[in-house]
This record gives sequence, C-alpha cells and structure tokens, in this order.
Amino acid sequence: MRVLRLLVAYDGTRFCGFQRQENGPTIQAAIEDALQPFTTRPVFGAGRTDAGVHALGQVASVECGTDHSVAVIRRALNVKLDRDIRVLEVVDAADGFNARFDAVGKTYRYRIATEEVVSPFAHRYLWQVAHPLDVAAMQTATSGLLGTHNFAVFMSSGSDVLDTVRTVDRADLRVRGDELVFEVHGNGFLRHMVRAIVGTLVEVGAGRRAPSSIAELIESRDRGQAGDTAPAQGLTLVSVDYR
Amino acid sequence: MRVLRLLVAYDGTRFCGFQRQENGPTIQAAIEDALQPFTTRPVFGAGRTDAGVHALGQVASVECGTDHSVAVIRRALNVKLDRDIRVLEVVDAADGFNARFDAVGKTYRYRIATEEVVSPFAHRYLWQVAHPLDVAAMQTATSGLLGTHNFAVFMSSGSDVLDTVRTVDRADLRVRGDELVFEVHGNGFLRHMVRAIVGTLVEVGAGRRAPSSIAELIESRDRGQAGDTAPAQGLTLVSVDYR
Repeated sequence: MRVLRLLVAYDGTRFCGFQRQENGPTIQAAIEDALQPFTTRPVFGAGRTDAGVHALGQVASVECGTDHSVAVIRRALNVKLDRDIRVLEVVDAADGFNARFDAVGKTYRYRIATEEVVSPFAHRYLWQVAHPLDVAAMQTATSGLLGTHNFAVFMSSGSDVLDTVRTVDRADLRVRGDELVFEVHGNGFLRHMVRAIVGTLVEVGAGRRAPSSIAELIESRDRGQAGDTAPAQGLTLVSVDYR
Repeated sequence: MRVLRLLVAYDGTRFCGFQRQENGPTIQAAIEDALQPFTTRPVFGAGRTDAGVHALGQVASVECGTDHSVAVIRRALNVKLDRDIRVLEVVDAADGFNARFDAVGKTYRYRIATEEVVSPFAHRYLWQVAHPLDVAAMQTATSGLLGTHNFAVFMSSGSDVLDTVRTVDRADLRVRGDELVFEVHGNGFLRHMVRAIVGTLVEVGAGRRAPSSIAELIESRDRGQAGDTAPAQGLTLVSVDYR
C-alpha cells in the first residue's frame, strides 16, 4: 500500500501533545481529520511530543489508497489544518515505511531565557529562569551526557519502555543573545528525558549540583536523584533521522 | 505631579487593541490594572493600535504620586501583566509629558508572507498573500507616499480627526527571505492608514493598479478609491519619537 511521509511543524502551545487522546486537541487527531478525504488509516509520528512541546521537523507517516499527487495532498492538508500546524512536505515513502519505528535519530532543542524581561513574541517557546546560571558548569555537565548509557534516571514514570539504554552522540549548550540553547542528538529519547536533563542542568547552573556529577547520576538509575522536569514550552523537536 | 514613561511591547493577537473598551481585554486596561498599587490615573498610549496589531516599542505615560523606584514599578508591572504584554522600560519623564500628545513621529512595520506555507511560529505576525506580487512595482508605488499630503484617502471612517494632512518621510518595501517587509515613518498616521496603504500596495503588486497611480490616488481624497484595509495581524508599531 502507498505510504506518505509528512514533514510537520507546529506550535504546540494549544495542543495536548502529538498523540491522540480524549482530553483535548492533539496534532495526530488534527492531521488524521485533515487526511479524511484521502485515508482513514492512523498517522504515526516519529516523536510523541508532550503537551506544549513544539516541532520544527516532526515526521509522520500514513498508509493511503488515494491516487492524488503529493502536492494536492499537502495543499489540502494545509487548507484544513489550524495555522499552528503546517505540513511542510509530503513525499511518497518506501513500502512499509513507518515514521515512528524506522526513526534512527532525533534532534531536540531546549531554549532557556536568562533575561529579566522576555519578549512577548518569544515567551511561548522559552523557559524563563530568574536566577543567575553558571554556563561553564552547565557545559561541563552537558558533556557528561555523551555516550551509550542506561538513561532510566531521566525517564518519567508512566512509560512502558523496557529498554532504557540510549546513545547520545551530540549535546551542547550555547549562549545565543539572552538565551541559553541546549541541543541534543541521540538514537532515541525516553519519556521526558530531554526535559529532565534540562532541569538537572539548571540545578548545576544554580550551583546545587557539581558539574562532574552527571556520570554518577546516570549510574544511579534513580529518577528521584535527577532534577525536576523542565517546562514543556521550552522544548522543540528539531529533526528526525532515517536510514 | 510625577509622570512615568513606559516602553511597552505586546503581541496584540488576543487583545481588542490599545484603547480601553467594554468589549474585551485591551492593552490600556491591562496596564492600568497592573498600575493599581501605584496610581489610578489613566494611561495614555502614543499609538492607539487596533485589535490584533502588535508593538515592539509602544510608549505610554501616566501620572502617579508613588515614591517607588522605576525598577520596582517595572518589576511589579511585569509580574502582574499577561506575558503577551511586557514593560521593557520605566523612566521618570519631564513634567507634563504625555505619550500621546507629545509624540512627533512613529515607525510602523507591516509583514507580508509570500511563501505558500507560513511557519506556525510566524503566522500571527504576517498577512499571507497567495498570489504573486511584483515587488518592483510596489516599491515604485511606495516612493509615491513620501512627502506632506492630505492622506484622507487612506483614513477609515469612524475617525474624529479633522486635519488629515501628514508627513511621511520614510517608506520602503524590502524582500526579507520569504517575506515582504514594509516600513514607514511619519509625523503621525490616520485611522487604519498604514493598513490601507498596504492593501493598496498589494493591489499594485497584483497588477490591478499602476505603480505611478499613488499621487493621483492621494489627490482624490476619496477612501473608496484606495485598496482594502490589510489585516491587522501583519502590523507592528515599532517605535515612537519625541523631541
């Protein structure tokens, strides 16, 4: 059966996350509704982003029987969808392609505002941290994330994932104007993992944890030892990799 | 009496404009409410922006009897205000300063999206024009705005302004990525004037009006001759000048 691959961007502020649920509007439900003229099959998203999390390059897939061109489908989707969700690209994927199960890597970005007054045009995409942060200490801690580890310490309860080993091959924290921007790339991420990492890094930045403590922290595998989960709004799924 | 001068930025999407009214939330009402601990005097805004119009550098003034420092007042305002409104600066103004009546110039920016798919992070600040636009023709028309003219042709009904002569000393239209950005500076603007100008420029860009027709159009002083009023969401009050 024909499989479509969608590249999707969204402002997650007003949505209850990617995955369809009863409680409120989701990205998956919005896309499935917009796809009604073409297919009624379920949409799979590479990253099941939480409520309030944004995406620049979410990838989704769906089986369909329609003969319409990808250009027609893209246009129809964008006409139907809320403007907070845009389908940037629709292409025909290889037989059996599944955006969720075939993903081999993801990049996430987390933005922290360090200025006292945050622009009204940016506040939906930032976590404002009021106290001073030691950026060098946070950068040292960031490098402690690299490698293949059992990241259970950063996984929120409520996940049904059994294998909690993941590989993080890029992690950096940069100063960009009045923001701190954390970017991380890995072969997969556990539930709330990026946000728990950011919450932990901010505790390092505040001097409440040693920059060198990350290795030991990961070793503990005890979620209670890590920092709080940082707010969803600062997080963006930047891109997804496939073979 | 002490007069405070406030520099204010806001995302106007969810507000019914600057000026207080019964129908819904306004910037003026929000600032006056936040100022309650310090003063109950009315707030004057330099530009009475319409519903949906944004500001990077709106200026407001208010009389007050409080002895609190400007730093304390700014912080208190930002704690109280919705995050879509930020007070960037509070300073003590000269005796008798009034942000509205003392303004001698204003800069407005209008953003037009020319791409087929507009980013979900930018759509609140852009007018998406689906048809192709002749930018050179629009630029020629833009230069026709310069000078001191009776701009009644661009004034919406419902204004109580009697003198409709204004001076526009800077007007340019630039391509910035997938956007067209129109910026205009003048000593004052009539009700909906910038939006009516933009609506007219887009008709020039679509080939429905000659680029050279602006002088004649202004001369007509007949609102029915100008283009439609462009949507509010593309407009931003950038800055206000004082002597």
